[in-house]
Amino acid sequence: MAKLIHSMIRVLDLDRSIAFYRDGFGMVESHRMDFPNFTLVYLRDPQSGTEIELTLNKGTTEPYTHGSGYGHVAFCVDDLDGHRASLVAAGVAAGDIKSLTSPVGSARFFFVTDPDGYKIEVLERSGHYV
Amino acid sequence: MAKLIHSMIRVLDLDRSIAFYRDGFGMVESHRMDFPNFTLVYLRDPQSGTEIELTLNKGTTEPYTHGSGYGHVAFCVDDLDGHRASLVAAGVAAGDIKSLTSPVGSARFFFVTDPDGYKIEVLERSGHYV
Repeated sequence: MAKLIHSMIRVLDLDRSIAFYRDGFGMVESHRMDFPNFTLVYLRDPQSGTEIELTLNKGTTEPYTHGSGYGHVAFCVDDLDGHRASLVAAGVAAGDIKSLTSPVGSARFFFVTDPDGYKIEVLERSGHYV
Repeated sequence: MAKLIHSMIRVLDLDRSIAFYRDGFGMVESHRMDFPNFTLVYLRDPQSGTEIELTLNKGTTEPYTHGSGYGHVAFCVDDLDGHRASLVAAGVAAGDIKSLTSPVGSARFFFVTDPDGYKIEVLERSGHYV
């Protein structure tokens, strides 16, 4: 049976991305593979065990483009307002808190952007988002 | 503490994507929210509990673009050769099986592409990829 284990994004600066996901979302480096032309770093969420794989292509300095298809990764947190405040205090630009309501459930969330421009949704732990 | 719960991708045909991720990777629809202009469908991997969120923007027919930054989601499977053969038998174009070896570990994998062009890495369950 297949198990979903990670999402991969290409980044320009490993240390910058590792610090962002560690300080903002508690992700920890779990594995690293270094090759002549690229490095792979796996950041694990200790709660779910799911990872973000960072790919650094050595020598690439041009920012990556984001297209229109891929959206974001999402984290849920217990204290949405407090988490947003701590990100803002750390210098992260966070969007306003918004809500979405439907007959089958609702969501309360905001967005931030990682150092390479990838969107991250932060959801209040509630309903479907646990 | 933050928990990574999903990755979101925009798709053109919900049924097509739901069938692809169900038949190929065992993902099951866990939640759906319908709004006037868009629909959100959550596909859950029963093993990890991690989800892929499909966003359908109603009226969009132009294929989404993929940029150079976002890479893929990855699944691990026990039987890499068998899983590849079953995908191919179902009409999915699967890349060749490749290997990557470093002093700290190795990976054996292939890639497929979902109906909207998102890359999926399928890894042999081994070493770091469990």
